[in-house]
Amino acid sequence: MTDRLEAQFAFLKEADHLKSVLRASRLIDDSRFENSAEHSWHVMLYALVLADQAEPTVDINRVLKMLLLHDIVEIDAGDAPIHGNVDYAAKAAEEEAAAERLFGLLPDDLSHEFKDLWRDFEAGESAESRFAKSIDRIPTPITNLEIGGGSWVDYNVTLDQIDARVGTPINTGTPGIWSWLRPKLATWFARNAG
Amino acid sequence: MTDRLEAQFAFLKEADHLKSVLRASRLIDDSRFENSAEHSWHVMLYALVLADQAEPTVDINRVLKMLLLHDIVEIDAGDAPIHGNVDYAAKAAEEEAAAERLFGLLPDDLSHEFKDLWRDFEAGESAESRFAKSIDRIPTPITNLEIGGGSWVDYNVTLDQIDARVGTPINTGTPGIWSWLRPKLATWFARNAG
Ligand SMILES: [Ca+2]
Repeated sequence: MTDRLEAQFAFLKEADHLKSVLRASRLIDDSRFENSAEHSWHVMLYALVLADQAEPTVDINRVLKMLLLHDIVEIDAGDAPIHGNVDYAAKAAEEEAAAERLFGLLPDDLSHEFKDLWRDFEAGESAESRFAKSIDRIPTPITNLEIGGGSWVDYNVTLDQIDARVGTPINTGTPGIWSWLRPKLATWFARNAG
Repeated sequence: MTDRLEAQFAFLKEADHLKSVLRASRLIDDSRFENSAEHSWHVMLYALVLADQAEPTVDINRVLKMLLLHDIVEIDAGDAPIHGNVDYAAKAAEEEAAAERLFGLLPDDLSHEFKDLWRDFEAGESAESRFAKSIDRIPTPITNLEIGGGSWVDYNVTLDQIDARVGTPINTGTPGIWSWLRPKLATWFARNAG
């Protein structure tokens, strides 16, 4: 039992470092960039509040667990900004190695459970994963609309790029939210485009 | 439906401010104080990893929802440091008003569900709440042991105070963890006391 607790706490201590991984997105008061731990908390809140937008078969408890774990690999692999120039194959390999090392700190039962949840999220094929991946994309545009563009300005993003990179996953998992959000984005880009 | 979404997003935008509520606890690399949003993420991870330490009847999914919501009242009421001088009756009244305002931004069904979860957590009487309140107390001593005392040094805390303020809730919800942790704390305080 002591060995088990030591392994559990080794993982929990290592996980603390997710609080120091910075994202390209910002707080809603535009005071600083957001870190991946507080982002993970916020997307879980988004999932619980917006659960009525999920397909009826979605198990919201599994979604919450996925989102709790979904960014932990960034402790080793870093955040890949959605509008940055990212080598996705190299990033996927880095994240797979990160999952092995980080979840590998846990006792075997938990290590397998967490890797399965993370791989299910990454694959984007289950109903829970489609919903979770949609939810993961919603907070940044909501915040950017409040703060005069945020990462859209930093990365010189167009509405076409938003449609492809943000609209596709949101519309896949939560089409009702995309229908509500898309006109707000169109208005913002019409007023602020290059 | 649009009105419902507007209310859901009004709450989710307001909740962003939990990322700016600072606690007396620190990151495990001692680089800065921790905020209540990233703390909320971390305690959910603690709960999931340490679920085998809960009483057998505990519904871990309800615990995760409680911990997701448990500190949102701090947006209005602030964090009450466990070793600070706090007027607990005044703080409870502030937190109740905060729960009414913040959860009141939501549609009625969600507002009631979230207030019930928060009040259950605060009351500390259900098996889920006992476990959640125990989990909420565990990360700070784990971190303080790593960083040379942290908030114990800032607040000049004694082992007797730790036993009362931290030991009591941890031992109530997760006695197996308190049995494992208490000797480590005794050793630290024996070496570093006054
Ligand atoms: Ca707390």
